[in-house]
Amino acid sequence: MTILRHPDFDSPELASAPDAKFVAAPADGVLPEGFFSTTNLPTYVRIKGAWQMPREPRMDSALVIDADGLWVREGRKLKKGDLVAVGSEEDGSEGIYVHTASFLGDEDGEFKFMTSEVSREKPIDYSQMASILIDERERGGYPIWVTGPALVHSRARADMVWFIRNGFVNALLAGNAVAVHDIEASIFGTTLGMTGSGESTVGGHGLHMRAINKVRAAGSIERAVENGVITDGIMHACVRKKVPYVLCGSIRDDGPLPGVYTDTAVAQDAMKAHTTKATMAVMIATALHAIATGNMLPAFVTEPDGTLREMPTICVDSAEFVVSKLKDRGTHQAFGVVTNAQDFMHILRLFVERELDGRSAAPASAHPAAVAR
Amino acid sequence: MTILRHPDFDSPELASAPDAKFVAAPADGVLPEGFFSTTNLPTYVRIKGAWQMPREPRMDSALVIDADGLWVREGRKLKKGDLVAVGSEEDGSEGIYVHTASFLGDEDGEFKFMTSEVSREKPIDYSQMASILIDERERGGYPIWVTGPALVHSRARADMVWFIRNGFVNALLAGNAVAVHDIEASIFGTTLGMTGSGESTVGGHGLHMRAINKVRAAGSIERAVENGVITDGIMHACVRKKVPYVLCGSIRDDGPLPGVYTDTAVAQDAMKAHTTKATMAVMIATALHAIATGNMLPAFVTEPDGTLREMPTICVDSAEFVVSKLKDRGTHQAFGVVTNAQDFMHILRLFVERELDGRSAAPASAHPAAVAR
Amino acid sequence: MTILRHPDFDSPELASAPDAKFVAAPADGVLPEGFFSTTNLPTYVRIKGAWQMPREPRMDSALVIDADGLWVREGRKLKKGDLVAVGSEEDGSEGIYVHTASFLGDEDGEFKFMTSEVSREKPIDYSQMASILIDERERGGYPIWVTGPALVHSRARADMVWFIRNGFVNALLAGNAVAVHDIEASIFGTTLGMTGSGESTVGGHGLHMRAINKVRAAGSIERAVENGVITDGIMHACVRKKVPYVLCGSIRDDGPLPGVYTDTAVAQDAMKAHTTKATMAVMIATALHAIATGNMLPAFVTEPDGTLREMPTICVDSAEFVVSKLKDRGTHQAFGVVTNAQDFMHILRLFVERELDGRSAAPASAHPAAVAR
Amino acid sequence: MTILRHPDFDSPELASAPDAKFVAAPADGVLPEGFFSTTNLPTYVRIKGAWQMPREPRMDSALVIDADGLWVREGRKLKKGDLVAVGSEEDGSEGIYVHTASFLGDEDGEFKFMTSEVSREKPIDYSQMASILIDERERGGYPIWVTGPALVHSRARADMVWFIRNGFVNALLAGNAVAVHDIEASIFGTTLGMTGSGESTVGGHGLHMRAINKVRAAGSIERAVENGVITDGIMHACVRKKVPYVLCGSIRDDGPLPGVYTDTAVAQDAMKAHTTKATMAVMIATALHAIATGNMLPAFVTEPDGTLREMPTICVDSAEFVVSKLKDRGTHQAFGVVTNAQDFMHILRLFVERELDGRSAAPASAHPAAVAR
Repeated sequence: MTILRHPDFDSPELASAPDAKFVAAPADGVLPEGFFSTTNLPTYVRIKGAWQMPREPRMDSALVIDADGLWVREGRKLKKGDLVAVGSEEDGSEGIYVHTASFLGDEDGEFKFMTSEVSREKPIDYSQMASILIDERERGGYPIWVTGPALVHSRARADMVWFIRNGFVNALLAGNAVAVHDIEASIFGTTLGMTGSGESTVGGHGLHMRAINKVRAAGSIERAVENGVITDGIMHACVRKKVPYVLCGSIRDDGPLPGVYTDTAVAQDAMKAHTTKATMAVMIATALHAIATGNMLPAFVTEPDGTLREMPTICVDSAEFVVSKLKDRGTHQAFGVVTNAQDFMHILRLFVERELDGRSAAPASAHPAAVAR
Repeated sequence: MTILRHPDFDSPELASAPDAKFVAAPADGVLPEGFFSTTNLPTYVRIKGAWQMPREPRMDSALVIDADGLWVREGRKLKKGDLVAVGSEEDGSEGIYVHTASFLGDEDGEFKFMTSEVSREKPIDYSQMASILIDERERGGYPIWVTGPALVHSRARADMVWFIRNGFVNALLAGNAVAVHDIEASIFGTTLGMTGSGESTVGGHGLHMRAINKVRAAGSIERAVENGVITDGIMHACVRKKVPYVLCGSIRDDGPLPGVYTDTAVAQDAMKAHTTKATMAVMIATALHAIATGNMLPAFVTEPDGTLREMPTICVDSAEFVVSKLKDRGTHQAFGVVTNAQDFMHILRLFVERELDGRSAAPASAHPAAVAR
Repeated sequence: MTILRHPDFDSPELASAPDAKFVAAPADGVLPEGFFSTTNLPTYVRIKGAWQMPREPRMDSALVIDADGLWVREGRKLKKGDLVAVGSEEDGSEGIYVHTASFLGDEDGEFKFMTSEVSREKPIDYSQMASILIDERERGGYPIWVTGPALVHSRARADMVWFIRNGFVNALLAGNAVAVHDIEASIFGTTLGMTGSGESTVGGHGLHMRAINKVRAAGSIERAVENGVITDGIMHACVRKKVPYVLCGSIRDDGPLPGVYTDTAVAQDAMKAHTTKATMAVMIATALHAIATGNMLPAFVTEPDGTLREMPTICVDSAEFVVSKLKDRGTHQAFGVVTNAQDFMHILRLFVERELDGRSAAPASAHPAAVAR
Repeated sequence: MTILRHPDFDSPELASAPDAKFVAAPADGVLPEGFFSTTNLPTYVRIKGAWQMPREPRMDSALVIDADGLWVREGRKLKKGDLVAVGSEEDGSEGIYVHTASFLGDEDGEFKFMTSEVSREKPIDYSQMASILIDERERGGYPIWVTGPALVHSRARADMVWFIRNGFVNALLAGNAVAVHDIEASIFGTTLGMTGSGESTVGGHGLHMRAINKVRAAGSIERAVENGVITDGIMHACVRKKVPYVLCGSIRDDGPLPGVYTDTAVAQDAMKAHTTKATMAVMIATALHAIATGNMLPAFVTEPDGTLREMPTICVDSAEFVVSKLKDRGTHQAFGVVTNAQDFMHILRLFVERELDGRSAAPASAHPAAVAR
């Protein structure tokens, strides 16, 4: 049982506070301009020099005084002429004190909505992400992309290829499945036997095995690209554009494809060769690889001159859980985007294209000032 | 304990089946072209006229025969020259029989991946949805939109306004909160006190109450638009474009705004006035309103000439659960899209714009033939 | 656009159907006993020998006839004496025909609620699961358990130990993290530095690394148990009870512990040594290991006499997604339980204990008859 | 771009810090006792009086010095004799400084795992919840329960009845659906036509409508209990035990049942009559009702003597989202439990029964001391 202390009414701020001001409601169910909007926290109102707590406390309502005393009341219940407290300050300076410190701690002492860190209800700032990506490319940064098979499975493949071809991907960290689905799509036009419009196909369950076998027969992904076995897609773009990739093995793997690191300790070393160079990380639709990368990624970038800056780390998943889990494993700097991987890729590309158009049109401007912390 | 019957080997199909064909592996870890890819179901292979079941059954592997008998073996374990069964038919006609009927029922007798109806892993066919929306507008249909506050909360507001202004919305069914957040955004630039880039603001927790109060003071949403209190957004677009809307009350409501049906039976009647006219339904980010609308929406459209066609019903949510729940309450025809509401709106608009450009460029073509069922 | 065919009214069933029967509502807002409850599918009512479709179709309502014709109407809107159709058959035999085949396919031609396969809204039959587990132990089966770290992380540890000690676990397939958290709990009383009541501890972030290091210093988990470094928990129970375990490596692993298979191909072989013997699988709170095991698990058990039976496969996760994904990767037989791993373990144990008490009290009874399919 | 300041090495604490101590690794891949475990934050090590940052920073590793300088290195890579930093303090007092303030703010300056507030990975403290519930009953508190239909739908019904009968429920706030499913279960043994073991039944889709109709015919839920129409379940227990309930209308409602408040403003008033008396709130499996109740519930209880204490508020849902949403709407005090409603009820009852047994066995003891904040 947590007892909450009343505030210290003898403190200078509260001792010297004025009485609260009350104004008549202009019409039935209508509050006066500047009405005080209540919270669910302990609230004290100064009336004739004494601090009172209202009855029937609740949030999103008004403070009303009548012959029976002081009440919290919903706006819809007011009658014209009812006396309603006005004021926007919650620190007593207008005669109303909300005791936030009792609940929310001292340093963030305001009642607020929407304070959770990761939520599908938060807006996604694509233009900021686009801007960071382009900045990284301009300054010769080393953004690494960490992706799960949903990226291929759900047809964001063309967008991923675009990012690779246009120089936004310095290394791709993924698993066997990303490459398998991508190569199945190139050879057979399906992923796990499902067509691009989501239909299962007859005989489809074996197609990813046939894709793997063709690459094993070729000897390597690179050779399968050279031989014309793989003609498009993510792996094709990496090979052609010479973007290094690390395919990490897992116990879920079919095959695996040649080049997959089946030893996870060796795979970690191969990943670390890129995480130590990284200046940004984009993690999409993978819990396993995102958390693995988070484990080896510093939260900061060390510039050549020794300056430190925060490592931009974007984590995209269709549920809040993966991002929260990543943060719970210590990757506090991760910025969570809760959406579908396919849609994320499509919109991000759109914003990058727009920003590129804008930058090429505009005269070179100074970089935005960095913020020190 | 479910006992599975062996197949009837005396049936004409199986009795007359040929022996399975085996081909040598061309290299270590490489399967011959046309290898048979296994499933996890009971499998029978005809060898010298007799049906055998392989040992160590598992999916995604090959059938291998050696001196010790018949095995299921992973491709990576094969040695050059190992004898591997080939064939793609699972009905015995190539000497291999997969007893799917024992598990999966008779009529859908093939082992398949990706058979779930609602999954974030399924591709989203935006171009088909765009096409249906434009068709509805062209034929004078009556698409109804059912939306939750996430649509406003997360800044898909501009896209929703675009759909309203361009004639794709014949009625909007929503709750008090959609209108409150939308109007808060118009007056204060925030939703629940959160800015468009996701920051909480000082004093922000009262802003939705102040927005409500301004509209209550104006007397109605329509008058607040006329008076210049509301200058943009979804409700503004509905009023200006004369698109009817139904705001249904719920126990979660603050205010409520004037015009909200606080009586839920009356609200249902107001909704039904639109569901009986509907020729399409788009439901976005709301379990309550989607299921309520699903309850009163027929699964079909009756054309003036008495022809019936399926009612296109799109349900968008960030989790599979809402769509599955909608189906579990009888709205079987719902097509689920698992993504973020903001991203959905943005991409759908993009595809509609593209399709409109395409149609205006192309000569009028015949409508695609309808599919009878 | 999917056109729906009207039914064939000349078919013998429909041609010979009687007129629908209408009964007066006994009071305002009250339907007569045996009222026909509508669906959202095309519905035809025979009146004076002719089939009519009602206006304003919707589900969960009644068929009402008045001077203006035939309507679908909500029960709350009826007046005493209104004429309401009665009947429970939807095949026309009582004069009402619901054209389910047009929508739902022929063989499952009834409108139903709650048809999704995996849903948190479905009841969980713990007594059936308990019964299967005990049966397996009695018949000398080989149940394998596949678990994620949530099992340890969230304190279901004692229950897991109970299942191991009491002979319900023939093999444990898991990852490095399960063992690390379990051993951290044994040595330091925390998991990832979090106490059993969920508080973070000072210096806690390094405790799992110290736990790993102690076992590495001991040389193996077995030796750490012998030396008294590990004194309780899941790994301790496995070692003492000589239950084989497979710890599969992943790129997320810290350490790893001695005995972890860092090579994923070798780990798969070690897992397969158990999946080929398995007669039941219980998969708890792990997507990676569940799907990996599903990949190598036959959907059936082959008894020594050649009889086949379905492999009981239980998959527990807090979201529908993992179970659906498992099924989408071909493990159709999986039975999904959507709940928290800790709660699952606690209740399952309770039911097993009850059933054991019941069986020891009761005289030996015949096994329940198997169901053939 | 967020620039991070280096720490002030001239501050007294850092200026006077000792050199870090290094100890030789006792064996290959084994760290010395007391090794310093790294984080992903900027880290400075004092060597010969100068602060150095190690190369290749990452978490969960060790600080190693060799001829090439200072490194962060995974334990598995060490060779016997490698020099490893030891120490547990991160404030420089042992020669190692982790600059947490740059990232995590000053007042909570430690790198920690598992800091998210709501997670399925957090343990659930049933014994604490049981204890609070019993305390409330003993002191004559007024716990209110707010429940969604999943509670009935999934057969936690018997447990809910137990809590009502045993005096743990002072008011029940719910919607029409809870009562409808509960009464359908009493009359027909199904919920939405699904049996207790999860099977759909023939004709089942109309059963909830028939249940509603029987109660409408009886005139009220109370009369249906008296008449023997309703013979068991939650509503039956409320009526018999005279526990007040509020059934709030929504646009999703079928029927509705007599006694449901169809006007949501009136329903809010009926709810508030209980929230103003509440001394505890238990919210289970309902977003709508939980957030509605949260809106009108103070975050604190005012004791008769004017003392304030935190309002115990438990929110149970199968996903983190509902609890986070409740907090985002201002109900900060809510304690989230992420699990299945059925399992929650079953285990909570078990713990309450155990605690009651314990208390009746033990001599009366002093209440645990309250904690002031």
